[in-house]
Parts: sequence; C-alpha cells; structure tokens
Amino acid sequence: MREEFRADLASVGQTLVAMAEGVRAAMREATAALLAADQTGAEEVVHGDAEINAYYRQVEDKVYDLLARQAPVASDLRLLISAIHVAADLERMGDLADHVAKTCLRRVPARAVPDELVPVVRDMAAVADRIAGKITEILETSDAQRAAELESDDDEMDELNKQLFGLLLGTAWRHGVEAAIDGALLGRWYERFADHAVNAGDQIVYLVTGEAPAA
Amino acid sequence: MREEFRADLASVGQTLVAMAEGVRAAMREATAALLAADQTGAEEVVHGDAEINAYYRQVEDKVYDLLARQAPVASDLRLLISAIHVAADLERMGDLADHVAKTCLRRVPARAVPDELVPVVRDMAAVADRIAGKITEILETSDAQRAAELESDDDEMDELNKQLFGLLLGTAWRHGVEAAIDGALLGRWYERFADHAVNAGDQIVYLVTGEAPAA
Repeated sequence: MREEFRADLASVGQTLVAMAEGVRAAMREATAALLAADQTGAEEVVHGDAEINAYYRQVEDKVYDLLARQAPVASDLRLLISAIHVAADLERMGDLADHVAKTCLRRVPARAVPDELVPVVRDMAAVADRIAGKITEILETSDAQRAAELESDDDEMDELNKQLFGLLLGTAWRHGVEAAIDGALLGRWYERFADHAVNAGDQIVYLVTGEAPAA
Repeated sequence: MREEFRADLASVGQTLVAMAEGVRAAMREATAALLAADQTGAEEVVHGDAEINAYYRQVEDKVYDLLARQAPVASDLRLLISAIHVAADLERMGDLADHVAKTCLRRVPARAVPDELVPVVRDMAAVADRIAGKITEILETSDAQRAAELESDDDEMDELNKQLFGLLLGTAWRHGVEAAIDGALLGRWYERFADHAVNAGDQIVYLVTGEAPAA
C-alpha cells in the first residue's frame, strides 16, 4: 500500500514538473514577445494559459483519485494538500505570464517597454526564469538546498523592482503616465511570479522531504 | 460518524466566518485610513494581518485534525479541500487590505489619493465591502443565490477600475507619475480583492451545497 502510494505521489510530481516547465516557458515567451512587440508570440502565450490551467485540474484529479482509492495516513494527506498548493502557485505563475503577454498586446505595434526600461525588465525576466528552473530541479532532485537559494533570488528580484521604480519616478522619465503604469504593473507581475515560485519551492521541499518549511 | 463529520465541518465553517469578517473589517479600515491619511489606522491594519494569517493556519489544522480522526469519503475530502481553498482566498484578501494600508503609510502625512480619485476609490471600496459581506452571508445561510450575485458585483468592480484608469490617463491628470502608479496599484488591490471573493464564493457554494461551481 505504502509502495503504491509512493508511486501515485511520484505521478503527481511528474505532472507538477510538466506544469512548472510549461509556466517557465510561458514567462520566457511572454518576455520575448514583450521586448520585441511580437503580437503572434504574445497571443500564443495567452492561448497557452488554458493548458496550464488544465494541468492544475489534472493535479487535483490525481490527488482526489488517490484519496478515493487509498486511505492515506494524516502525514500523507498533508503531502497531497501540499501538491495542490504547489499546483495553485504554478497556475498563478501562468496567469502572470499571461498578464505580461497582454501588456504587450495592449500596445502592439508599439513596444510597451521604452528603451531605458529594457535592461531592468530583461534582468527581472532572467531572475524569473532562473527561479522557475529551480522549481523543476527541486521537484526532480528533491534538493532542499536549491530551495534555500530561492530566497536570495527573490531578494534580487525585489532589488530589481526598486531599480525599475527608480527609473519610473526619476526626473529623466519622459514617457508619461501610461507607460509608467505599464512599467509598474510589469514589475509587479515579475515580482509576484517570484513570490509564488518561492512559495511553491517551500511546499515542494515539504513534499519531497516531509519537512515543514520554515515559517 | 457522518453526524460527527458534519459537526466538524460546521466548526471549520465558523472559523471561515470569523476570518471573512476579519478580512472585511481590515479592508474597510484600510480604506478609511487611506482616505484620511490616518497613520495609526493604517498601522493597525498592517499589524492585524498576522491575525488573519493565524485563522488560515487554524482552518488547515482543523482540516488535518478531522482527516486524522475520521476517514472521510472522497466527496467529503473534496469539501475539506474546498475549505482550505476558501481560507487561502480570504488570506490573500487580507494581504490586499494590508497593501492598501501600506500605500497609505508610504505617503503620510500626505494623502496617497488625490481629490479627484476619492469618489472612485470610495466606490471600489464599497463594492469590495459588499462582496466581502456576501461571503459571510453565504457561509452562514448557504444561499447559493447570493453567490451568483458576486459575478455582477465583480463586473461592477471592473467597470470602476476602468473609470479609475480613465482618470489616471486623462489629460486633466496633474499629479505626476508616482500618484498615478499608486492609483493604478490601488485599483489593482481592490479588483483582486473582488476576484478572490468571487473564487471564495464559488468554493463556498460547493462547500455548503456539494455542487461544483460552474467553470
């Protein structure tokens, strides 16, 4: 029974890996579309969000199916509910990639990001991509050390967001209110993407090690 | 056994009611502080967020305790996981009240909201308050009809958010980029508050009627 439960849990883990990879790819493509004012690319991200949401349902269904077929002990139930939490964070990360793509679409054929914001947006996207990659890695290798790194990645993201706000609020800003609001919201999407990744990482450590994340 | 399960479930429901009332009060106080540039009021909301987070833990603990003591059937498990989803939405609503309070604190003794935004912010807060009130009502009365109303409340919120953006991007705007970004983010907090309330409402309908929310 215990063996079978482990196998079922591994299958939930595989779905989470596929979902994490999907979310990472979505944010990468959304950023590429944003920086290139690429309508087709952005539209693909928007359409692809349904697929990420379908993964979420798949995780929930697998968990319910497992619960119905087996009678897991209380500690296993906590693991299963953690899996649902991870899926919920990943689903939300997919939404944020969708928001980035939609910001691109609102301004095409113009580019939503003025030249001087390109480097900081690129850096935020790079940190987002690195964080999303670690989620997959932690799911696959159960390496709790990797999860600890997420906190410092997240600090780096917060620092970049401050830098972004510095540009938006600086005296040199010449792009008006609309571009500033877009910039601030974009910063928010990348920052929230990172926050959800850190949450997911904490839950995964619990999922793979059985140890509760530090509060 | 079934009787006992119902009683346990009702106790989870009571915690959710207390949490929903706490979240509603938090957003109401955050708005009052924001519009009055009231530092003490805003600080109380920020400190109070820990209490809302504690409610979340309480719901999770009750659910785990229930799972450990009883062996619920699969449909009951779905109900219990719904309860955790509702608690997660309410917790996030508390965070958004906290964000509103922090926007206030960033600008005191000045008021973060310029005169011409006061009416629309007041309206958004009123819709947020009405929605939060319905969550409590649905939890207490199991009235699925009330839940259906949440969708149109949410549409009203989206409409108000558009109105807010119209003011921020209008030619009459004279408050510069920082106040515009604050305004846009405030709009976002109220809008997200409403989104989470609608999610919570759908889950509660499921919790109290056993009927899955329309996708």
